[in-house]
Amino acid sequence: MTDVMSVLGKIGRRVDAEMLKLLKVGAAKDFHEVVFHQVKAGGKRLRPAMTLSFCEAAGGSQKDALSAAAAIELIHNYSLILDDIIDDADVRRNLPTTWKKFGLSFGILASTHYREAIEEGVLRSPNPIAMSKLVADAIRDIVEGERLDVLFEQVEHGVEYVDKHRYEKVTIKDYEKMIGKKTAALIRAACEAGVVCAGGSDKLRRAAREFGWKGGLSFQMADDMLDLFAEAEKLGKQVGKDIYEHKLGNIVILYSLELLSKTDREFLLKVLRAKKPRDRDVVKVIEMLRGCGATERVQKRAKKLVDEAKRALDKFPNKEATKLLADLVDFTYKRSF
Amino acid sequence: MTDVMSVLGKIGRRVDAEMLKLLKVGAAKDFHEVVFHQVKAGGKRLRPAMTLSFCEAAGGSQKDALSAAAAIELIHNYSLILDDIIDDADVRRNLPTTWKKFGLSFGILASTHYREAIEEGVLRSPNPIAMSKLVADAIRDIVEGERLDVLFEQVEHGVEYVDKHRYEKVTIKDYEKMIGKKTAALIRAACEAGVVCAGGSDKLRRAAREFGWKGGLSFQMADDMLDLFAEAEKLGKQVGKDIYEHKLGNIVILYSLELLSKTDREFLLKVLRAKKPRDRDVVKVIEMLRGCGATERVQKRAKKLVDEAKRALDKFPNKEATKLLADLVDFTYKRSF
Repeated sequence: MTDVMSVLGKIGRRVDAEMLKLLKVGAAKDFHEVVFHQVKAGGKRLRPAMTLSFCEAAGGSQKDALSAAAAIELIHNYSLILDDIIDDADVRRNLPTTWKKFGLSFGILASTHYREAIEEGVLRSPNPIAMSKLVADAIRDIVEGERLDVLFEQVEHGVEYVDKHRYEKVTIKDYEKMIGKKTAALIRAACEAGVVCAGGSDKLRRAAREFGWKGGLSFQMADDMLDLFAEAEKLGKQVGKDIYEHKLGNIVILYSLELLSKTDREFLLKVLRAKKPRDRDVVKVIEMLRGCGATERVQKRAKKLVDEAKRALDKFPNKEATKLLADLVDFTYKRSF
Repeated sequence: MTDVMSVLGKIGRRVDAEMLKLLKVGAAKDFHEVVFHQVKAGGKRLRPAMTLSFCEAAGGSQKDALSAAAAIELIHNYSLILDDIIDDADVRRNLPTTWKKFGLSFGILASTHYREAIEEGVLRSPNPIAMSKLVADAIRDIVEGERLDVLFEQVEHGVEYVDKHRYEKVTIKDYEKMIGKKTAALIRAACEAGVVCAGGSDKLRRAAREFGWKGGLSFQMADDMLDLFAEAEKLGKQVGKDIYEHKLGNIVILYSLELLSKTDREFLLKVLRAKKPRDRDVVKVIEMLRGCGATERVQKRAKKLVDEAKRALDKFPNKEATKLLADLVDFTYKRSF
């Protein structure tokens, strides 16, 4: 297997430089530290690695897709800045979040600037009109996914609209719709963007979308696992954040609701619905979730998605690039199972 | 003189329908009331009227520019949703603001969706790449203008970055930079977009930019007057909002600081810097501002800009359309002087 971390590191350095270049356009010097903060906090750069690899897989070269790859990673970072405001989150990647460090006003201004840095990347890509459509669709999907994620929260918001539309129950189908929009849509766009930059056929675009969609769903399931079971330091944020944030939209929690005894299920829901859950209750809930058989179900579901994603790679001519893509999707799956 | 209000009303109906169409793309049915709220609150639709008129002035027809005009007006509304969050504003056009009605999370999600509705309008315009550049530049300028506006506020934010970069003094040059970015840049883009949709020459694009820039500066000066001296009901929001929000970035206030006696100047600054200024002190300040000769200076400055803007129209062949544009810029000037 490829040394995925070292490949990602190499790609990351090129993508990071390109992102900073795009963020600099039209930003006053005094504003740099605000807009650079989120990107400089780091990240795996998985999405741009997929864009660059799909460009190669479809017969292009990485440099054709660099601006598009940076735009895709900027979308991810744009969504994180906004997410942290919406979730009232103080820490990400062991650093204060943008809004926490610079205040709400500047958090919002930074995110607004990000969207135009994304546009700059779109305009510098080989097929700006196709890229623009991909980007707009992906961001609208993220908004809808985030909307559902908020509505799945098990807590009164005190806002009429939100409380009226809240979900009391969430099915696995609701959940897959939510993570499809929130997470898989952008990974799908990352993959398709690579083919677009290579000038690849519609058939290859569809195959890349298939890979991104299935890989994206399994990625979010792995992320749900990490949220609950990772070590705090490795995670770079609070463990059990989903529980503290009253989120029913976590696959482990949803499967557990089917598997736990009535008493345990009621305890889980009580903790999820508590205004301020006690730390020791969250720890207890996490132990329950770990032991009830839900993680094995999640693993099985995610593994199936990963296998289906990898089959979509058969259609591509460049076997070296597709090998890396298969390793990438395995990597995202294995980091939590 | 043209009946400007009736012309704006007619244009407004077409632009409003187009904006709703763009906002509907990719929005779940349950999300419609959230994203429609800001646009349905109304507005003069001055910017799209300029886009449509410049398209005609440069030899095109209004329908060529309808999507672009809607995109421009959506930028304005996008900035208002964000502005209201940043300024913690509850009421606009006699209605609750989007974030106030739907909560902060949904206010942010709505604004994020607006940006993609703008992109949709860009993509449907006759020259999407040129439009995309215009739009990205304009939004980055608005962010920078808003950044300066916040930094001009005469109050501690309790955020290290903001308090470090705050302006203790604001010159007229600082002020014009701020309103140039915050207000004039979008009006300039609205005008240039019309010429772009008509496929007009670079010379005409430059002339439209000149008109939009000067007209935009005078427009903001008129707006500064209205903030302080309009009737509350007509204004649709609180009178003296700039004072309550500690804003030094108002031309009337800046000129007054030069004209008032030392005692009055100190009183003005004290009220601007008060955490929660008393209503009767704000009323007293407004009376001082009205009587000190500042408004006459503002009027003279704005009149000069309006005259220069109108001269830029000489370069256009279609005299009927340019007549309307001249009336529009006069209208924005006269509504407050």
